[in-house]
Parts: sequence; structure tokens; C-alpha cells
Amino acid sequence: MSDTVKFLLGEREIPTHWVNLMADLPGEAPPPLHPGTKQPAGPDDLSPIFPMSLILQEVSVEPEIEIPEPVRDAYRLWRPTPLYRARRLERELDTPAHIYYKYEGVSPAGSHKPNTAVAQAYENAAAGIKKLTTETGAGQWGSSLAFACQLFGLECEVWMVGSSYDQKPYRRSMMQTWGATVHRSPSDRTEAGRAQSKHPTGSLGIAISEAVEVAAQDPSTNYSLGSVLNHVLLHQTVIGQEAIAQMEMAGEYPDTVIGCVGGGSNFGGLTFPFLRRVIRDGVKTQFIAAEPAACPTLTRGVYAYDFGDTVGLTPLMPMYTLGHDFVPPPVHAGGLRYHGDSPLLCGLVKGGLVTPRAYRQNETFEAAVRFARSEGIIPAPEPAHAIKAVIDEAQAARESGEQRVILFGLCGHGNFDLSAYDAYLAGELEDPEFSEADLESALASLPEAPALT
Amino acid sequence: MSDTVKFLLGEREIPTHWVNLMADLPGEAPPPLHPGTKQPAGPDDLSPIFPMSLILQEVSVEPEIEIPEPVRDAYRLWRPTPLYRARRLERELDTPAHIYYKYEGVSPAGSHKPNTAVAQAYENAAAGIKKLTTETGAGQWGSSLAFACQLFGLECEVWMVGSSYDQKPYRRSMMQTWGATVHRSPSDRTEAGRAQSKHPTGSLGIAISEAVEVAAQDPSTNYSLGSVLNHVLLHQTVIGQEAIAQMEMAGEYPDTVIGCVGGGSNFGGLTFPFLRRVIRDGVKTQFIAAEPAACPTLTRGVYAYDFGDTVGLTPLMPMYTLGHDFVPPPVHAGGLRYHGDSPLLCGLVKGGLVTPRAYRQNETFEAAVRFARSEGIIPAPEPAHAIKAVIDEAQAARESGEQRVILFGLCGHGNFDLSAYDAYLAGELEDPEFSEADLESALASLPEAPALT
Repeated sequence: MSDTVKFLLGEREIPTHWVNLMADLPGEAPPPLHPGTKQPAGPDDLSPIFPMSLILQEVSVEPEIEIPEPVRDAYRLWRPTPLYRARRLERELDTPAHIYYKYEGVSPAGSHKPNTAVAQAYENAAAGIKKLTTETGAGQWGSSLAFACQLFGLECEVWMVGSSYDQKPYRRSMMQTWGATVHRSPSDRTEAGRAQSKHPTGSLGIAISEAVEVAAQDPSTNYSLGSVLNHVLLHQTVIGQEAIAQMEMAGEYPDTVIGCVGGGSNFGGLTFPFLRRVIRDGVKTQFIAAEPAACPTLTRGVYAYDFGDTVGLTPLMPMYTLGHDFVPPPVHAGGLRYHGDSPLLCGLVKGGLVTPRAYRQNETFEAAVRFARSEGIIPAPEPAHAIKAVIDEAQAARESGEQRVILFGLCGHGNFDLSAYDAYLAGELEDPEFSEADLESALASLPEAPALT
Repeated sequence: MSDTVKFLLGEREIPTHWVNLMADLPGEAPPPLHPGTKQPAGPDDLSPIFPMSLILQEVSVEPEIEIPEPVRDAYRLWRPTPLYRARRLERELDTPAHIYYKYEGVSPAGSHKPNTAVAQAYENAAAGIKKLTTETGAGQWGSSLAFACQLFGLECEVWMVGSSYDQKPYRRSMMQTWGATVHRSPSDRTEAGRAQSKHPTGSLGIAISEAVEVAAQDPSTNYSLGSVLNHVLLHQTVIGQEAIAQMEMAGEYPDTVIGCVGGGSNFGGLTFPFLRRVIRDGVKTQFIAAEPAACPTLTRGVYAYDFGDTVGLTPLMPMYTLGHDFVPPPVHAGGLRYHGDSPLLCGLVKGGLVTPRAYRQNETFEAAVRFARSEGIIPAPEPAHAIKAVIDEAQAARESGEQRVILFGLCGHGNFDLSAYDAYLAGELEDPEFSEADLESALASLPEAPALT
């Protein structure tokens, strides 16, 4: 039997609509709150930094939203992405489980992030906006937005977390090659940045504050976020829709779907189309959200209203949070170092539909090397968390002798993370623990707001 | 009309055979010569370092050679690769020319190199070999062979050119992640390395000498070369065969086919299937081989017998050469820094079927940035040479008002070359000239051998 089993769709099978899970969720979701008045935030509160078309997507309860043709056209640059059966990994694990992965690393920026970047750049360009600002950690999101802005003729200005700016110059060069301007955050260009000059290494929360501040001051400039918000997760549902069609080609349906979680866009993009079937049709599927033990938002956070950024410029969002002051240890999975999480995803965890699990850095790299040596693709540190969960599940299947079908999201390649692999292979990779004391102090800074049940 | 035009083949359209252009070349090709006796080298002279199956491919005059099923199965990991029409670039250049590119950067190692790496690893494993040695410059070839050895259960030992080993640690980490052992060359593990300790930055020629020496001493260890030899170019012809099928889907046929040339495997892989049509059917097609002005083998070298390595362990090959002592300036297109070239390709240049052109480093990066900002893919510095030639041709077409169809090989992405982009964007990229004095001194070291006509 063939070792390589790949399922490819034709271009016509790029989804025509995004799946809006909001339409299928039972009950009313708690609304975001205005950071000043603590009253429910309406579309007008968001209009200084987002175009109305994206705000309407953010609050829409339509079950499906049509993908504009220029966005589908940009998707054609790398979509549909392949789905693989990991037969070499199955053999390496000696498991009866069938393991599938959906690979988003084939995009020009190397991850799933361009799925929403091109949608956001298109809508802003259509609204007459000239420039987008954003933040980026390790650089996956910033480079995706730089790429998308170039396609739609927008300027792009990125605040990059200081520690990553210093340590990972190549993602910065990538953004600049695509024509973006990149600032080290905290910068002296914003009030938020100047106020945080005591934290020279920066954080995602600070960089968000800087980018939002600049966008709010100029009517022709908007802000763009790479995760957390409903419309961002919405755009990512092309992943799960393609995966459903490809699993049909494979003649199987997943018992378990696994993804890593930072802000939730990769996880939501893969799982929401499958979750809709659970909610609508009662299909039985297990969903595992894999996060870093060093930033255990879903497994150790509290469910409460909190700011999305450090300074407190964004609306208060209902989510599992470690507190907006929480600064996670510098694990290499930069895309998972966020104090909060998508409110939509948090509601699903709260409701028991999604099971979170946390993993230490070294065990995720062990899993990633095992994957690279069997399947040939070197994963980014973020999906390495999903791979660790997959290997655990596959080994459980071997022990129980159970034939299971596991699908996971391989949301990006690790070409820019090889220094981390180097440290792991040399036995020098740090394995930071979560600090209870840091959590307690960060939770003490939670804003006053109505309690969530 | 759509901006993104991509032509995809199904897996069944992965070629079943490699195209052996040897069968169609007029006249007798000058044979390689034994480095000691200067007599034609036979299969037995190569058997200490290559398996007989690859030696037979090397000397075969069969027009097509079947691809073993396990090799096709490994190809399925990333093949067929996409062919794009560069409509955004055409608009940027305001040219009537239609520009197409075949993109090999979707392989796990990020270039065309795995096409031959998996074929060579398979044949060696089938012959009972336990370990492959090789050399690598910037790391594209070494990482491809590390990947392929992992797939077929072989050990892999790589000598990496010292300057690249120091400057480009990420390709080294990539090889190690795939389980290979990597040595800095010149190393103290070989006689060749110890003899060259006066050249601490190393060269491709020295690294080849080291890898060949180790392979020749151990019957269970063979050597693997990533370019130059007939069987290597043969394996790469999957590129051109797919491109022909994809151009048919596009309803066009190229007037001009362009590729970059280091040792010739990318160029041969793309062009040989098209060249066979020129030779067999009299199809009119122009072929342009783009090389660096800092290492202008085809445009400034002499056509003579020379060694493939620095120390003089390999057979003498009939080729355009700058002399095996020539050490090119450290341009970022590490894959193009080789003193010689594929004898097959050199014969085609000699016969006037292929036109070589040389470009300076800065003009190739200017072309690469222009491409990245229109098409969204950041090219490796090697194919940036082809892009420079494409832009020149497209601008000539605009000036003459001529509608031309241009196809080029985008043989790899630039994810590991962003420091070079950084230097270019900062205006700090070196633009080394070719040194006539260096050439004269290197040509003085050409071995005594029969003259070529």
C-alpha cells in the first residue's frame, strides 16, 4: 500500500461561503462591553478601527456568509490546501488509529493566517482605507497581513513584539520584502508604547495597544487583528470545510479533531464546520484544544470579562483569561502566547463541547521531531502542541486496541523556528513552568465588569 | 478576469518515466575520464561510490527510464507542483508577454532538490547501502538528502561549506531535525579536509572531496551528488514533463524557457523535455540559462576537461569550467557557486541550443523583490537570476509590441535567505564583480587532458 496518501481538491472546490457558527450556538452569547461605559459595545464603537463590512460579519447571525470573489481569487494562490493521511507516523507509533492532517503551511506566508489577512485587506481596500496597522509576535500574522496588503494595494504598518524583533529578524525581513513598515514594540511612536518603555522586551498586548492607537487617530487607517474576533475565525472556516470534503474523499469521518490554540483562529477555522454538524445533526465528535502549559488560558484561566490588549483600549470580551497583565514565559510558540482567547471558542469550552489540554515545551518539540522524521514536514512550534495531543491519542488507541480516526490541523511550517529545534536537539531548550504567583497578580488586574456564568 | 491563474495536475499525472535527453543528442558525447589514467571512465570506476542502478542511469541512452513506484510514492508528498501564470507581474511590467512559472518550492525542503534526493536514496537503500555522504553549500541539497534518507531509512552525513555553516545555521538545524549528521568543511575527519585547512571558509569543491573520500573507504557507504551528473538531471525531468502538461491546460506553448544554472539540475529538469521537442520535432523554442556574473561558468569559462571537486578525486568531465581551483565571491545564490557545469548542459550551450546570460547580485534581488511584491512568493536568490532574465525579456516584448509566452522555473522559496533580502533592502548588499585575475590563475590549474572541440 502507498505510504503517501494525499487528498487534493480542485480550485472550484474552494468554499464559496464562510461558516458562521454564531448562527447555531444555543442561547445568547454575552456581548463585548465598551471599555469605558461597560455597556454592550455596538457597531459604532468599532467603526473607528474596522470597516463596516467586517463589523457586520463580527455581529452576524447568518449561518453562512458569501466569500467575495476577489478574496476567493487570492485564495487560489495557495488553496485548496492538501489533506494528508499520516501513514508513516501511524507506522512509527504502531497504532491502529488513522491519522489525518490538514496542511496550511503551503501559503506564501507559511501558515493559515493569510486566510483572514486577504479577507480583511480586501474589505478595507473596498472601504477606501489606505493603510492597515497591526501587531505581531513571532511574525506569522504580520507577514501574512503584509502579503495581503501588497495584493490589495494597501500600506501596512506592523508593531512587532520587541523580544521577537531582536531574536527573529527573518520574519521582519519577510514583512519588509512585502513592502510593510515594521516597528519594534514598545515604540516611541505611540502613547501606549512610551508608557510601556519599562517593559523593553514588549508583549503582544502592548503591541496591540500601539497599533490600535495609531489606527484610531487617522480616518484613512484601520486596524487588523489576526485572531480572537468572530470575523477572523469566520474567515478561517475555509480550512474545516475543505477538510470535510477531503475526509469524504478518504471515506472516513474523524472521531477526534485536534488543533492548537493561541487566540483560537486556527482551531476555530478547522473545527467550526465539524462542530456545526455536532450541534445540528448530533454527530459525535471529540474536540481537543492544545495549548502551552506556559500560557494555559483555557486550562487555568478564569472565565471573565477582560481587555484584549494591555493598555485597555479594546472592548471587554467574555473569555477565559489569565489577566491582560499576564506576560507568558518566552516559549517558541509565539502564536500561542496570548492571555485570552476567542470568546466564541471560550463559550464552547465552557459548554463542554471542546476539551482543552496543556503541554510543556519540550514534549511538544519531541512530538514535532518525531513527526518531521516520519512525515517529512517540519512543523511550527504552535501545531507541535496539536501533534503532541495526536500522539497521546494514537497511543491510547493502541493500548485500547481501538480503531479511531484522528484529524488535526498542521497550521504552519517551522522554517523560521529552526533555532528552537536546534536548542531542542542540543538538549538546551527551556521548559518553563507556569507561575501561580504571576497568575494571581495578573488576575488581580481584571477590570470591574459583570460576572459571567 | 481572475488575477490568480494556477494550473494543477492530479496525482495520477505525476510522470511515470524520466526523460533521458542523452538518447536524442546528435553525435557522441565526450566521455568522462579517469582522473589518474585519463582514459574513458567506465561503470566500474564509479562503483565504489554509486550503486550500479544509478551508474546505469548515468550512462543510459534509453530515451525514457521508468520511475520506481516507491520514488513516485515519495513524490506524492509534494508533487505535482503548481504552474502559475504571473498575471500580477505581467500587469506590473505592463508587458504583452504571458509569463508562466513552475513552482518547486512546495517540497518539504523548499526546492527542486528532493526530486533527485528521493530517487538516489531509494536506489541506494535498494542496493543495501546504509549511509550516504554528501556536500552542501547553502544547505538546499544537504537538507533535501537528509529528508530523503529519513524516508528510506538511511543514515546521512553532510559536509557543509564552512562559511555557510557559520552564517546559515538554520539549514543545518533542518538537516539535523531530519536526523542527519552535519560537519563543517574543511573538517579534520578527512585527508582532503586536513589538507585544505588553510581555506577555513571552505568551498563546494573541498566539501565534495571530503564526502567522496569517506564514501570511497566504506563499502556500506555511498556518495550522493545534487547536480551536474546525467542521472541527477534525469531525475529532475519530472519538472519539465509536468510543465508541458500544464502549459497544455493553459492552451499555450512557451516561446522562451528560462532557468537559473549552478550545476544544471534545475535548468535541465525544466528544459530537457522541451528540448527533446526541439531536437525531435523541430519546435522553435529559445532557452536562456541565467547564472551569476560572480561565477560566470557558461559565459566566461573555457570548454575543457576538469575535475568536479577541488582535490581531484572525481573523474574529469567535459564542461565549461572556471578551473577547479576557482573560488567564487560569496554571493547569496550559494547553489550557483560552482566552478563547472553539467556536461550535458555544456554540450547544449556549445551547440547553440541554450543561450547563457550572467547577472549581477543586486539586479537579481531587485527582480526578486518586484516578483515577491506582485506574485506573493519570495524567491530564493538562485531563481532570482531567472526572474531577472524574465523581466528583461518581458520588457523587450513590451518595447517590440510582441506577444510572447515565457516560462521559467521558480525552483525554490527564499525563506532561508531573508538576511540577504534585508541587506538588499537596506542598500547594503554587496555586488561583487568577477575577477579576471582569479580566472587566469584558476585556469592555469586545469589538468592535462585531451582538448575538446
